[in-house]
Amino acid sequence: MNDNDISLSRRRLLGTVGAAGATGLAMGAGGGVLGQSAAQADPPRALASVGSATVAFHGRHQAGITTPLQTHCHLAAFDLAPGAGRKQAAALLRRWSRTAAELMTGEADGTGGSDRSRESEAKAEPASGIALDAGPCSLTVTFGFGRSFFTRTKLTSQRPDALAPLPPFSADALDAKRSDGDLWVQIGADDSLVAFHALRALQRAADGTARVRWQMSGFNRSAGATPAPMTQRNLMGQVDGTNNPKTSDPDFAERIFLPTGGSPGWMTGGSYAVFRRIRMLLDRWDDLSPGAQEQVIGRRKSDGAPLSGGTETTAVALDKRKSDGGLAIAADAHVRVSAPETNGDAAMLRRSFSYHDGFREDGAPDAGLLFVAWQADPLRGFVPVQRKLDSGDALSPFIRHEASALFAVPGGPGKGEYVGQRLLEG
Amino acid sequence: MNDNDISLSRRRLLGTVGAAGATGLAMGAGGGVLGQSAAQADPPRALASVGSATVAFHGRHQAGITTPLQTHCHLAAFDLAPGAGRKQAAALLRRWSRTAAELMTGEADGTGGSDRSRESEAKAEPASGIALDAGPCSLTVTFGFGRSFFTRTKLTSQRPDALAPLPPFSADALDAKRSDGDLWVQIGADDSLVAFHALRALQRAADGTARVRWQMSGFNRSAGATPAPMTQRNLMGQVDGTNNPKTSDPDFAERIFLPTGGSPGWMTGGSYAVFRRIRMLLDRWDDLSPGAQEQVIGRRKSDGAPLSGGTETTAVALDKRKSDGGLAIAADAHVRVSAPETNGDAAMLRRSFSYHDGFREDGAPDAGLLFVAWQADPLRGFVPVQRKLDSGDALSPFIRHEASALFAVPGGPGKGEYVGQRLLEG
Repeated sequence: MNDNDISLSRRRLLGTVGAAGATGLAMGAGGGVLGQSAAQADPPRALASVGSATVAFHGRHQAGITTPLQTHCHLAAFDLAPGAGRKQAAALLRRWSRTAAELMTGEADGTGGSDRSRESEAKAEPASGIALDAGPCSLTVTFGFGRSFFTRTKLTSQRPDALAPLPPFSADALDAKRSDGDLWVQIGADDSLVAFHALRALQRAADGTARVRWQMSGFNRSAGATPAPMTQRNLMGQVDGTNNPKTSDPDFAERIFLPTGGSPGWMTGGSYAVFRRIRMLLDRWDDLSPGAQEQVIGRRKSDGAPLSGGTETTAVALDKRKSDGGLAIAADAHVRVSAPETNGDAAMLRRSFSYHDGFREDGAPDAGLLFVAWQADPLRGFVPVQRKLDSGDALSPFIRHEASALFAVPGGPGKGEYVGQRLLEG
Repeated sequence: MNDNDISLSRRRLLGTVGAAGATGLAMGAGGGVLGQSAAQADPPRALASVGSATVAFHGRHQAGITTPLQTHCHLAAFDLAPGAGRKQAAALLRRWSRTAAELMTGEADGTGGSDRSRESEAKAEPASGIALDAGPCSLTVTFGFGRSFFTRTKLTSQRPDALAPLPPFSADALDAKRSDGDLWVQIGADDSLVAFHALRALQRAADGTARVRWQMSGFNRSAGATPAPMTQRNLMGQVDGTNNPKTSDPDFAERIFLPTGGSPGWMTGGSYAVFRRIRMLLDRWDDLSPGAQEQVIGRRKSDGAPLSGGTETTAVALDKRKSDGGLAIAADAHVRVSAPETNGDAAMLRRSFSYHDGFREDGAPDAGLLFVAWQADPLRGFVPVQRKLDSGDALSPFIRHEASALFAVPGGPGKGEYVGQRLLEG
């Protein structure tokens, strides 16, 4: 680090604080508003507040789970390098945690922190200042461990039962190279360069210890692009995520997070993330009329209201019948087959991003959903719902599950702690 | 079209207008502010204004050339299908123009316009409402013709001399499959779903007439992510685009656009677009210190000021010497080698987007710049500058030109006219 780096860091920090002050907004650390609707019901925000918004790195849970959806994400799985074990993994998680904390608070100076000189195996963070003067832009970084991590690090005695491989589903067309992985990083931010910079910083901090296995990038609608409060739309044009559990629900915490005193102990405050890359067969979908699309989903295209009536947030009335006696929501409609009441009250918090990776050889867009679902127990969340969808969802002919992974995401770190420390030094 | 479609369209339109009214902003058609700095020096904008901002489709020049950079872009080249000639191309440009106009004004109802039934070869626009209720989000669509278009349509007599193939450069590593093309579409928008919807609508409108040859997606920093007025940064962290000609320059129009009475006549008000996909060797770049990176470019990392002194907008003083007698800006610094004064006063308007398409097999990011440069004459714009850079630019070891194209972009359409009509019906 040289004097120039320090002054840049100070200037950036002051610039960020100044911007928040000028617009009369105080977006303090941890100021992330829980719940998409709540965030959008706030008074109109000034554009400049996008840059200065921060999410807390430390806390009972990691950031990026109940944080409102950002506009950009990177999902990346890493595999430990040959010869790297528990000790190297611990050093990596320490470096990653420090980097994430610095970037999320806007305090990073681009040099990787004051004690990096003690860890000669790590390359410098990119010094190129990609995100210089951008502000933290609601950056979140979330870390998880895959099943293979525990074998590689000889920590199988600490491996959660919940990390058992997901069962196969008949419609799966999974690419193993883009599935699973020892370690998982989820990056979200409201700016493309901030998100890319975080990805690069973490990749470089892993150099020599772990290598990217797969990486995908996703997006959601810009914060300013929706005039009315509304849940996100996906690339099928459907309002997606309406029936998510709300942080205000009395049983939210027990459904999504592991309790104190659970097993394994290091997962206290943690959650399990199911990832699925779901390609949408958009040419087929777009050949349907809007009315036919609504029948497949069971919700109105325009505002996401269930076909049984009401508005987006009205409870789905599965028994409601039309004047001709037929079900208002078809027997195989996606909302019916995936509804908690038809799946033993299964609950998961979906927090997905759209993706578009150009066009395939056949001319169809390589596009769809980077589906991420959070739950305290995959066997009471994703698995029963997907099993049901697999056998009778009207949406199935229009989608392909192309990649899959399951990660144990530990609780958030306390001050001075790094993510996973209770596992790696337990 | 059914009643439901109509009501959706009306609601969306009203919603958009309402949002602009509520924030006290009137972002009328054609309200795009010319020049990045001017736009950013405006009073703080409310976030909601992002959605309602529109750029005019009709006019002397096409949109997307002097329009301030949006946060998202898609660049796509299409090749005419076997058997498609001038007549089919004219019908396609008519459909494309109508679609672009409707989407840019926020008037599209998702059904492709009232007279689509007369053109049975065209598929419907996606009816899925991907961008429903998002507002136009400063969408621009720009159309161009590649050299091969004129052969395919037997219009070689109308082919501009300026469409002669670009000369080869020693550092080129071009992929022919991702270069050139009969037709070119440049889409820009301040929302990812709006941009994707436009790409899909144009692709479907081309069905049976033209097919995607290559397509790439790019991004720039979010409007809210920069506290101070500043030109965009690229993925090397460099402020990029400072020395662009300004629309207020007295010779701007003659340098960038074709005059009335020029040759060929159908290019009046048009421009030539040079596209280069420039991969950045970021691992190599990030191994340099910030100081060494500044020497390569000739500008300060922090604020883009030239190393000869001043601020970002201070003219570069190529002869300035340091106290030790050495040049303040190195002999091979990028700003020196590319400066207009060292290239016969060559001028082009650069309007580029960053890209990131995951990681390569070797672990390096597949990322860099979708470089787009506009000029009235490529032989007095891109070509002489690139020839100079090719032989002595300190930046060369850190970049690879991987794709290339040159397109004739006609002037903007008058009311009732479609883009290219003066060529195709001339």
